[in-house]
Amino acid sequence: NSSFNQKKHPHRRYNPLLDEWILVSPQRASRPWQGQTEKTAEDQLPAHDPNCYLCSGNIRANGERNPDYQGVYVFDNDFGSLMKEEVTFSNEQPDFFSLKPERGINRVICFSENHSLTLPEMEVEDIKKVVDVWQEQYKELGAEDYINHVQIFENKGSVMGCSNPHPHGQIWAQSSIPSTVLRTQENLKKYFEKTGNSLLEDYIKKELEINERIILQNEDFVVVVPFWAVWPYETMIVSKRKAENLLEFSDSEKLSLALIIKDVTTIYDNLFEISFPYSAGIHQSPTDGKLHAEWHFHMHFYPPLLRNAEVKKFMVGYEMLAEPQRDITPEQSAEILKNISVMHYKIHK
Amino acid sequence: NSSFNQKKHPHRRYNPLLDEWILVSPQRASRPWQGQTEKTAEDQLPAHDPNCYLCSGNIRANGERNPDYQGVYVFDNDFGSLMKEEVTFSNEQPDFFSLKPERGINRVICFSENHSLTLPEMEVEDIKKVVDVWQEQYKELGAEDYINHVQIFENKGSVMGCSNPHPHGQIWAQSSIPSTVLRTQENLKKYFEKTGNSLLEDYIKKELEINERIILQNEDFVVVVPFWAVWPYETMIVSKRKAENLLEFSDSEKLSLALIIKDVTTIYDNLFEISFPYSAGIHQSPTDGKLHAEWHFHMHFYPPLLRNAEVKKFMVGYEMLAEPQRDITPEQSAEILKNISVMHYKIHK
Ligand SMILES: O=P(O)(O)O[C@H]1O[C@H](CO)[C@@H](O)[C@H](O)[C@H]1O
Ligand SMILES: O=P(O)(O)O[C@H]1O[C@H](CO)[C@@H](O)[C@H](O)[C@H]1O
Repeated sequence: NSSFNQKKHPHRRYNPLLDEWILVSPQRASRPWQGQTEKTAEDQLPAHDPNCYLCSGNIRANGERNPDYQGVYVFDNDFGSLMKEEVTFSNEQPDFFSLKPERGINRVICFSENHSLTLPEMEVEDIKKVVDVWQEQYKELGAEDYINHVQIFENKGSVMGCSNPHPHGQIWAQSSIPSTVLRTQENLKKYFEKTGNSLLEDYIKKELEINERIILQNEDFVVVVPFWAVWPYETMIVSKRKAENLLEFSDSEKLSLALIIKDVTTIYDNLFEISFPYSAGIHQSPTDGKLHAEWHFHMHFYPPLLRNAEVKKFMVGYEMLAEPQRDITPEQSAEILKNISVMHYKIHK
Repeated sequence: NSSFNQKKHPHRRYNPLLDEWILVSPQRASRPWQGQTEKTAEDQLPAHDPNCYLCSGNIRANGERNPDYQGVYVFDNDFGSLMKEEVTFSNEQPDFFSLKPERGINRVICFSENHSLTLPEMEVEDIKKVVDVWQEQYKELGAEDYINHVQIFENKGSVMGCSNPHPHGQIWAQSSIPSTVLRTQENLKKYFEKTGNSLLEDYIKKELEINERIILQNEDFVVVVPFWAVWPYETMIVSKRKAENLLEFSDSEKLSLALIIKDVTTIYDNLFEISFPYSAGIHQSPTDGKLHAEWHFHMHFYPPLLRNAEVKKFMVGYEMLAEPQRDITPEQSAEILKNISVMHYKIHK
């Protein structure tokens, strides 16, 4: 018997945030790919597109006209998944058919009036304004009686279901704490009750000591490829101190967050020299008015690409039925990401 | 306040198999789509493709030659995610870095020598032979000491990461029970311990009474759009009697299963008159040598398409971070699927 080598042998790793295992198959990265390939985004877009429903002054699908905004612009999603309306509901439901109405608010956040930009190409001060708006929105929406959770996220790139390249993100604020957030919360809580510490604070300390999966850090935040990462180039931004949510961040911490977002998204763009697709979003304490000492602010980046700009990782079949699986190891990905410049490739061109 | 109407108002539904909630947004189905579209498969493929590594007599990527097989053909995956090899491993691991080697076997099952077919286009007797092989493989692989779970599945269509249209499925057999299967098992078990009954047997009885989400049934199996379905046209085949796994099925039950697989996949093909993509797979008791009275055989179909052959549902952003979300309700999908003929559209052409 040869002895176990995590660069060579299939193994499972434990994700303490979700309390589940994932399968890692380092020996599989070399299999040939003859399957579907993805289109890459156009390299140069205009600063203003008359057909874009998110650009300043344009008319949206529902007939409303955007103001001539500059910088960040927030509005209620015209085709939201949630409704503010309260409905009456009888609570009796037969077994197996549990259902309950869900209230909420969906918003769109345009990051900039400039149609051609994305986060890594924006100035740090302008990304800082996006972070300011996230903070304000979390506060404003969370203050509503019936809003107990505020999910801030961005889908970037058509491969991630984003139908408009105009730089924007979304907020889905709702009455219930969503399933994945609740699972995370339960695991953070168990750890906190057992140790009196924040799981992510303790984890990040260890990662900084080991310094193998850390991609970036500044005074206030780190970017790490989690030991249990699923997507080939998945990363997580974590605040160095245990902040429960965005409201705790000072102006200088918000600038630190903007800086590290610019750097990690630039590294992503530089990896294959394309505008790098991902879904990203913040996990933080819910706005349910309860104490949440267990929570620790973090932001996940889930990018789908695997080998190059055209080949993505498919989370299908085995992954849908059994458990997440990855080929390249988190350490191999970290090694690649760590060695990429934070100077955007377009600047050299 | 208007009173709650599940065809109009956003709501959450409970999935008892996974013990989690999903978000349903019936009011959202009409939003315009300007995003990525999918390619549809070629309509007519040759019965033998000299470039296909799965066709009879052809050479595979690793240099081996397939026999001149007719019917079903099984072989070990040349680029498996698992390895049979046993490795020595020291069990001490620091907190946050839990990892363990995983042994297993990956197999490919060609459903037919005919490159141009798919399950719905195959004769029932030939699909029956696939079911026979599933049963044999479950038995053979499960008998290995170090194999405690056998995952049988099929990825169909390039949108589901399938790189070869030759009709085939896969088996990933391994030492551990994968995360999603374990969660399902825990929930089946809780119900079984509380009631002495099979959760799915009780559920299916109710569905048959209500008869709103049942798509098909024969003597031994039903096809239902689960009340908690996530994918737009998701369905589940469930055995009417509580069988823990494939080994319990008689010859006539295997024929019933083949028949219902043919019918449900034909309905799928007929929906948009294309070869309908999906990931499908069997959930059944693990092969860990323990008693599993809680288990009840079922097969999930997770098809990605939403509005038509080109527009799929993207499980991104909110779904990755928060919880699964669907637009069209399960009842609306069931209504559509129920009214589709089980005669394959190609037969009329
Ligand atoms: O094994 P295949 O067909 O090469 O690969 C496909 O199915 C696997 C199992 O669902 C996935 O891990 C891969 O991402 C997918 O592309
Ligand atoms: O809201 P959008 O951008 O129209 O839609 C996109 O993001 C949503 C939230 O992640 C998903 O539910 C949709 O499937 C996706 O296409």
